Amino acid sequence: MKDQVSTAPHSTELLVCIKCRRGAEMAEGDRRPGQALFDALGALTLPEGLRVTPVDCLQNCDHGCTVALRGGARWTYVFANVDEAADPAMILDGATRYHATADGLIPWRERPEHFKRNCVARIPPLEA
Amino acid sequence: MKDQVSTAPHSTELLVCIKCRRGAEMAEGDRRPGQALFDALGALTLPEGLRVTPVDCLQNCDHGCTVALRGGARWTYVFANVDEAADPAMILDGATRYHATADGLIPWRERPEHFKRNCVARIPPLEA
Repeated sequence: MKDQVSTAPHSTELLVCIKCRRGAEMAEGDRRPGQALFDALGALTLPEGLRVTPVDCLQNCDHGCTVALRGGARWTYVFANVDEAADPAMILDGATRYHATADGLIPWRERPEHFKRNCVARIPPLEA
Repeated sequence: MKDQVSTAPHSTELLVCIKCRRGAEMAEGDRRPGQALFDALGALTLPEGLRVTPVDCLQNCDHGCTVALRGGARWTYVFANVDEAADPAMILDGATRYHATADGLIPWRERPEHFKRNCVARIPPLEA
């Protein structure tokens, strides 16, 4: 019997811009805030079917750190101004709620406050 | 023999937020700037394989009007601050250049100046 939680159309990707330095000057070898955010998220326990993917620049450089959620026949959402120290648990909570939807639309009252105020863009699913 | 220009993986979608009112108060029946932008783009001659798709809100409401380019195994790009009267030809030029790429990355020097300074976000292609 198939495990419905892991059904492919419902798998979710949390994209994290690992190049983000949040507008700061940084030495070449310094760990960037975006990389720190990715590392922090990777250390958390993720629900089945949700994976965290590093991306070399989501090009929202004036409002970093930035993450995006996508997967299956869902709207893709991009969120800005994420704090790599304070926000990983909040991002995971939001990603888990997104993962539970069929269309990517988390009911407004269930959205993390950060998602309500820091949505940069959303992209509709491809037509079936 | 197949026409390579219309090959499915290279088809491109120009998404236009038709709900955008660019922060202005508007009466219920007024045509919104986003709708005007969509109408203006639809009146232009598009290259084969490029289509313009209306979207009910790309949720970049503080920096409208907003468009996005996607299609096939390409990066998706979102561009803000589009003027519905002055910019349709520039957007079509940029869309045509995007359409000509395999990966969505228009060479920097060929990008419309507007694309260079108004990219809100980009999303990587899904892995094959």
